[in-house]
Amino acid sequence: MDYHFSDGLRDLSPSAIREILKYASGSDIISFAAGNPSPEAFPVDVVADISDKILRDRPIDALQYSITEGYAPLRANVEKRMKEVYGVGGDGDAVLITAGAQQVMSLMTKTLCNPGDVIIAEDPSFIGSLNMFRSLNTKLVGVPMEADGMDMNALEAALNKYDNVRFIYTIPNFQNPTGVTMSMAKREKLYALAKAHGVMILEDNPYGDLRFAGEDLPAIKTMDKDGIVTYAGSFSKVLSPGLRVGYAIGPAAVIAKMTVAKQGEDVHTNIWAQMISDEFMAGDFDAHLAYLRELYRGKAELMMALIEKELVPAGIQYYPVEGGLFVWCKLPEGANMKEFCTRAVKEKKVAVVPGNAFTVDEHAESDSIRLNYSTPTDEQMIEGMARLGDLAREMFGA
Amino acid sequence: MDYHFSDGLRDLSPSAIREILKYASGSDIISFAAGNPSPEAFPVDVVADISDKILRDRPIDALQYSITEGYAPLRANVEKRMKEVYGVGGDGDAVLITAGAQQVMSLMTKTLCNPGDVIIAEDPSFIGSLNMFRSLNTKLVGVPMEADGMDMNALEAALNKYDNVRFIYTIPNFQNPTGVTMSMAKREKLYALAKAHGVMILEDNPYGDLRFAGEDLPAIKTMDKDGIVTYAGSFSKVLSPGLRVGYAIGPAAVIAKMTVAKQGEDVHTNIWAQMISDEFMAGDFDAHLAYLRELYRGKAELMMALIEKELVPAGIQYYPVEGGLFVWCKLPEGANMKEFCTRAVKEKKVAVVPGNAFTVDEHAESDSIRLNYSTPTDEQMIEGMARLGDLAREMFGA
Repeated sequence: MDYHFSDGLRDLSPSAIREILKYASGSDIISFAAGNPSPEAFPVDVVADISDKILRDRPIDALQYSITEGYAPLRANVEKRMKEVYGVGGDGDAVLITAGAQQVMSLMTKTLCNPGDVIIAEDPSFIGSLNMFRSLNTKLVGVPMEADGMDMNALEAALNKYDNVRFIYTIPNFQNPTGVTMSMAKREKLYALAKAHGVMILEDNPYGDLRFAGEDLPAIKTMDKDGIVTYAGSFSKVLSPGLRVGYAIGPAAVIAKMTVAKQGEDVHTNIWAQMISDEFMAGDFDAHLAYLRELYRGKAELMMALIEKELVPAGIQYYPVEGGLFVWCKLPEGANMKEFCTRAVKEKKVAVVPGNAFTVDEHAESDSIRLNYSTPTDEQMIEGMARLGDLAREMFGA
Repeated sequence: MDYHFSDGLRDLSPSAIREILKYASGSDIISFAAGNPSPEAFPVDVVADISDKILRDRPIDALQYSITEGYAPLRANVEKRMKEVYGVGGDGDAVLITAGAQQVMSLMTKTLCNPGDVIIAEDPSFIGSLNMFRSLNTKLVGVPMEADGMDMNALEAALNKYDNVRFIYTIPNFQNPTGVTMSMAKREKLYALAKAHGVMILEDNPYGDLRFAGEDLPAIKTMDKDGIVTYAGSFSKVLSPGLRVGYAIGPAAVIAKMTVAKQGEDVHTNIWAQMISDEFMAGDFDAHLAYLRELYRGKAELMMALIEKELVPAGIQYYPVEGGLFVWCKLPEGANMKEFCTRAVKEKKVAVVPGNAFTVDEHAESDSIRLNYSTPTDEQMIEGMARLGDLAREMFGA
């Protein structure tokens, strides 16, 4: 049969990264291509104990249907913590528990956008979100990233150019893939521009708790007196991504529509995982976050030292990072980025993500690569970076 | 702010049933409105033991990111069992693990339909699916249900009338809400019509394993030599709905696009729940199914006896059922169905679902109600049906 595919899916390919991961896993390849938490990051014994208690004491609660909005104690705990610790969420807001933060992108898009409507995104940005936006056939408009966040002049120009912008998508902290954190001045400017143009903001903050240097900046959502920001949070990087638990905090009217959309996607999020998240949060969550920050500080510092040693002498530049999971490296002027990535995996058995995986224009060129430091062991990092250094020296001289 | 909602969501309300359930739970109300498995249906000790083993022996596997296609052993087991036991799935097919069967509806729609494209559905049908189709602003065309499945003349007329039909949605076994099972002759006719018109079939079979009387009929998917059927299966009714694990078996090209769409919705399904489903299936799954069939046979027979005693004398008719979770009752000619449902919950403290919750045209009238027998205890059924009988006698005489 000659299948008729929708306009959004017809030309959409699987995430290049997830395809790389499929072939890189379990082989002799050292992978800097993932976005996975470190295996050391999982509180496995605590989760096993909580789970055992839930399944022995309240099994039916965990196994029966539940409500779309999410497990009530988890919603209440998320609402309380986000308000008290981060100033996120106010009287006009509501909380929706989702299947990871990824589902927040899906529900926002479905709720606000018709095909052809414009979503403005940082360029480059997280491919999972970009592909989500593409799958519903929205029009993506990219705003270039600078060292302190998106180019505000380009953002203003985009807002002036299109009258059907539905939201601006941003990862303000340790952005994926660049690692960049948006400055306070730009956060305020972004909010003011969105408000002036009557456009919503989708603030995606999966890495905010993973800052190991520098000072925390307030979420854009903390400024939201006008009901224009939906905040996407996640347990993936601070507890476990396999659980698939995230949340949206946004204007009640928008969350209500997103809840209807979620009924159609999956009825509700796996209830056991919500109960685990809730009980884990009620324990010493802050101690676990402190542990994670130390874990990733060590890995990030090692990765940056290895970049300085192996890549910088060959003319590769990078953004130093203060949190998150990634370092963004720019190859020397005129370098063939795709050749570098291909030779890295084929000749050196090291997987990195080519920068063009993240460009808003899928056909745009990129001179950068993304390196992840959370998944590999220290030994793998040392060995893998030495191999990348060999390749850089071969290709770009020393 | 004046929010701009998408055409699909703007006028879409939450599922009437899920709204009823929210207010009916934990109160003094006896509910025949749910679609929940019986609390007795959950193999709680087996699940707790499997979970404990997984979380002690392979915690990282359960907590780390996984691939979108689904946990490989579960995919293999589903593929094997469905092929060997039911003849579902062939060489050109692939399996995708989803967040319940609900996500199959979401992914099929997103993959195949642009806004305005036509989906043909049985009328009445499952509100969760209908609302999903509506949320992406497709055009729904209903085909009336008869005692042996959809009216094939009306189906043919609809296929002739619209040239942008993307798929026909059917629940062939113990349909929700009518309880009707499609005859073999109609299964063959449906397949032939779909093939002749180059239209796909979405075969949703959540209740197929819950037959407690009569003979099993082959799935429509067993006839699929042309790659036109996607089959939606679920662990919700045979293990646990809280897990949110279902699957699609369909043409590989369609499943590949659905997999891309799923990356955008939730990356992958909760991995612990997939591992639980896999291990449970590898155990004595058939014994559990036999137990469930006996459990629901008893409940269905009690419900039908109570309908005969309490409702039939007042002129209410019903379709006798051979499986599934629901009985569909038609009120007497000229009865005010909405008044009956409202007085039932307000005066008699008994919740039932008004038939118009399931009509393809949201504004259509209905003279029927749906009764669920899986969730209430036997005592609740006896008491609740006596109260409904009182109301029926008050409203329609004896």
